[in-house]
Amino acid sequence: MFQTFDSPPAGADTSERIAGLRELMAKAGIDALLVPHADEYMNEYLPPNAERLAWLTGFTGSAGLAVVARKTAALFVDGRYVLQAPKQVDTGVFEVLQIPEASLADWLGKALKAGGTLGFDPWLHAPSTMDELAKELKGKRIKLKALPKNPIDRIWGRARPAPPRGPVIPHPMKYAGKSAEDKLAELQTTLKKDGQDAVILTFPDSIAWLFNIRGSDVAHNPVVLAFAIVPSSGKAELFVDAAKIGPEARSHLAPLAKISEPASLDRRLAALKAAGKCIRLSPGAALWFYRKLKGGKARIVRATDPCILPKARKNAAEIKGSRAAHKRDGAAVVRFLAWLDREAPKGGIDEIGAAKQLEAMRAETQALKEISFDTISGAGSNGAIVHYRVTTATNRKLGSGELFLVDSGAQYLDGTTDITRTVVIGKPTREMQERFTMVLKGHIGVATALFPKGTRGAELDPFARRALWAAGLDFDHGTGHGVGSYLSVHEGPQSISKRGATVLEPGMIISNEPGYYKEGAYGIRIENLVLVTEAAKPAGGDRDMLGFETLTLAPIDRRLVVAEMLEGEELAWLDAYHARVREVIGPELGPTDRAWLEAATAPIRR
Amino acid sequence: MFQTFDSPPAGADTSERIAGLRELMAKAGIDALLVPHADEYMNEYLPPNAERLAWLTGFTGSAGLAVVARKTAALFVDGRYVLQAPKQVDTGVFEVLQIPEASLADWLGKALKAGGTLGFDPWLHAPSTMDELAKELKGKRIKLKALPKNPIDRIWGRARPAPPRGPVIPHPMKYAGKSAEDKLAELQTTLKKDGQDAVILTFPDSIAWLFNIRGSDVAHNPVVLAFAIVPSSGKAELFVDAAKIGPEARSHLAPLAKISEPASLDRRLAALKAAGKCIRLSPGAALWFYRKLKGGKARIVRATDPCILPKARKNAAEIKGSRAAHKRDGAAVVRFLAWLDREAPKGGIDEIGAAKQLEAMRAETQALKEISFDTISGAGSNGAIVHYRVTTATNRKLGSGELFLVDSGAQYLDGTTDITRTVVIGKPTREMQERFTMVLKGHIGVATALFPKGTRGAELDPFARRALWAAGLDFDHGTGHGVGSYLSVHEGPQSISKRGATVLEPGMIISNEPGYYKEGAYGIRIENLVLVTEAAKPAGGDRDMLGFETLTLAPIDRRLVVAEMLEGEELAWLDAYHARVREVIGPELGPTDRAWLEAATAPIRR
Repeated sequence: MFQTFDSPPAGADTSERIAGLRELMAKAGIDALLVPHADEYMNEYLPPNAERLAWLTGFTGSAGLAVVARKTAALFVDGRYVLQAPKQVDTGVFEVLQIPEASLADWLGKALKAGGTLGFDPWLHAPSTMDELAKELKGKRIKLKALPKNPIDRIWGRARPAPPRGPVIPHPMKYAGKSAEDKLAELQTTLKKDGQDAVILTFPDSIAWLFNIRGSDVAHNPVVLAFAIVPSSGKAELFVDAAKIGPEARSHLAPLAKISEPASLDRRLAALKAAGKCIRLSPGAALWFYRKLKGGKARIVRATDPCILPKARKNAAEIKGSRAAHKRDGAAVVRFLAWLDREAPKGGIDEIGAAKQLEAMRAETQALKEISFDTISGAGSNGAIVHYRVTTATNRKLGSGELFLVDSGAQYLDGTTDITRTVVIGKPTREMQERFTMVLKGHIGVATALFPKGTRGAELDPFARRALWAAGLDFDHGTGHGVGSYLSVHEGPQSISKRGATVLEPGMIISNEPGYYKEGAYGIRIENLVLVTEAAKPAGGDRDMLGFETLTLAPIDRRLVVAEMLEGEELAWLDAYHARVREVIGPELGPTDRAWLEAATAPIRR
Repeated sequence: MFQTFDSPPAGADTSERIAGLRELMAKAGIDALLVPHADEYMNEYLPPNAERLAWLTGFTGSAGLAVVARKTAALFVDGRYVLQAPKQVDTGVFEVLQIPEASLADWLGKALKAGGTLGFDPWLHAPSTMDELAKELKGKRIKLKALPKNPIDRIWGRARPAPPRGPVIPHPMKYAGKSAEDKLAELQTTLKKDGQDAVILTFPDSIAWLFNIRGSDVAHNPVVLAFAIVPSSGKAELFVDAAKIGPEARSHLAPLAKISEPASLDRRLAALKAAGKCIRLSPGAALWFYRKLKGGKARIVRATDPCILPKARKNAAEIKGSRAAHKRDGAAVVRFLAWLDREAPKGGIDEIGAAKQLEAMRAETQALKEISFDTISGAGSNGAIVHYRVTTATNRKLGSGELFLVDSGAQYLDGTTDITRTVVIGKPTREMQERFTMVLKGHIGVATALFPKGTRGAELDPFARRALWAAGLDFDHGTGHGVGSYLSVHEGPQSISKRGATVLEPGMIISNEPGYYKEGAYGIRIENLVLVTEAAKPAGGDRDMLGFETLTLAPIDRRLVVAEMLEGEELAWLDAYHARVREVIGPELGPTDRAWLEAATAPIRR
């Protein structure tokens, strides 16, 4: 299994750690310390050795920030964790506060009434966050102080896990579609054009893409933890633990980059600074990099990581790989759905059992490298929790008359998948059917959209909501996120959401996942991945148009569709989609599952 | 008539003026001078005494910027004026360049090779524009210099028109719906809450709204050219030419504001600066104000004009007024359309004749104070020019088999209107009908939208385009702009467009005007004004929703509708809209026009 279902550990006694930390703080002359859930790479998932927040507080959520003052301390979490956090931390020590309602600056203003010094680790914060905080603390007589070493690392001691050393694996040309040499050459052309001497790459997925390598340093994202410097001419330099590099990786990387130990990064930046170079650096890079480079002759250009856009525009090999991955994954999901349909009505299936079965089906493909995130497996009211993660404590039976929402994905060498299906166990209510159909109308509204070149993701988001809006309903998340190619399942810059400012371009892969959540009752989400494609120009049309090819292949529960609520074109899309699922996935199945699929994808009558 | 149809004057000989200007420039030690189409109030329409650009260059377009160097000169215009400008200016003197393709900074870099000083009048530019330009000119060794007096004003001489002196008219409570006393009190509460000592109001429509006054200083917008300072407590001060204020206006204004001559503004700002006040000023105010206040003890808060949002949220009296204005205006438009339908097929109507007839119908209401903009009256290929203004030179007969697009509006005491109808003369082609129906589907998509509170205008724009996109078509303007209440027909902050970042609120009036333009052939636009309203919560809905009430009442040409292309709900909307037009407008008409309206609004069969 690539995931666990353990309950978050409860009631951590962290008093000794806090006491030790406060001693160090006193020695360092700081009155408060920030402890974010973050690592040096701004990863979504942290390696165990970077779980400082959990070690210090007991809180194991995926986002949060602790602040420890001399006598008081607080933990700031978002709405997902307001129930979990107080169970995990010693609330006698940590006041648990919810963002964005509570403000860190206000808390600090009260905790440090007479002013003081707030320490932070510049490796764990982006410059914009700290600029913002500094602005808010102005007038409260609180100064910020970057610490040369994280105090937690000093006291964590021997129990601290070692840094991950997942081996570096070359990513074959067959899947990457473009050699690392060509990618590097194009990157260097960009740097020259922009008049920059070098770029510092700080995001592991950019580095994985650029050098055509993959790794296993963090859960679910096959990246290598590393930094890189690419000069506008000459050889790149990759800062990575040599222990990760076997002979194959060494010969793959030899022509591409000089391999250096991460510890040498400091000296290398000092040299760049002394040489007065013009250095490109992402606004999302750790503040540490900015501090190392500034104040000398070097010029820092704060500009988007230049790998991000080319990585998002999948090439022909990556598209071919994604189609193959989706065919394989679709067959696994269909076998799971058929099993669920046979077993769940008997009453013996629970959320954890379902998640395990789904992973087992994927593992049977023999191609599964990882799951692309912890499966969201929510029955009944648990389905209404958007970021639900099932544990032994929350595990629920899939009851009759309930909806079951399962959001999951796989990492295969040829592509990353992400699919959500909502199915009914037994007989749905009319309300469930109507709301499912509204979500489906939104899904189809996005799937069938044609749009002119230059359209931003934000311009498609309303199509996912119109039918829900007409009924006085909505959902409180974006409609879609970008997806990598055997890389992160959340990959920018494109999105379909209110904030989706990136222009959509052919080759981008993005999720289409409208939903509806009735608190305490049920959740609905229908998610396929779609590929942005050049659309054939309709007869008489005078604009260059783009559209979507739906990549994900698995039936949408027909029992939840109110056919009369669909327009003719919507129904035609659903039937055509189901016909395609049947044609592509059917031959991958045994007779029992194939028969199930035939029924599940039969045209809908009205 | 409130508009003329004269062709723009051609081939101006402005050599003497340019020579005089260059002499002054030499004396003032400046190497180039900016001459924008702008006045001190950042008006859309300028009073004649502010038409410096036209006087200097001969160019009479509504937007443009000349730059005069010692030996060379250029005129920058946008796509609307690339054909007109070269005919109007001496191209031996002015190089005509198109923005945004051509860059002012680049032109200056070439014209002032050795560096130099660029003069400008700080009354005619917003600070952001000049900040941007200064940034671009950095590195070109060109300095900016604010001139104490506009050099053109020194040489324009006696032929310069006097500043407008339209009388100030109190706007009755019946139409304003809220007293100026109450508006001022609320504004002062806002200032106190925001910790500001005073606000400087520089937009004439904000001042007209706040003090409940109207005027006639510029065409089509019933504003008074004035500035105001409103302190957080105490009496406001209105800087306005005393010649505009008759006894009635004097007694209306007496309890509201001290009346001061515009010339005293300078001293008043110096006093605020010396007193170290915290002053709120719009980012759109002339740079002159910022320069007057800065560098002393005063603190300038660059923040939106605080009248803009309350002005945009129409109150009950303004809404009632708008409905009455639209009923009156709808009757005038219907009588025009009926006349057009009788007369145009005979072949004797041209664009100017149609525009005159429409204005005459509005004048017959006895309530017409002004038209709200120059009528766009475009037959056939002229209809495809989005900002078309008919002149004797471009005037075209309304030919058989052609589309005729007419976009017009009226200023009544109780409201401002803006309506576009596209009608066919004789028999349309199938293509015209299909594209008209796509535009209509977009119009209905906006008119029928429900959306949750907090929705920005940008989120509704895609509904206006979806049907066109599906056919590979689009239109290159926003879907809707805000409209004032017997004020400017273009009023912010709300809009329905890709850039519509303002959250829509109940009481806002906005246009709904998707279109389609086939260059050299025909143009289609269907425009109604809509009012944002609180929508009844649909059964089972859990969000607070908003929707639109369509204010404009006039038939949409049924002969151009392909009924089979409409969904059931779209057709139902069109029939219901037509039924409403018939019921409300029918009783306002004589028998002939009423019979025409009955036919024009009959339900559509398919």
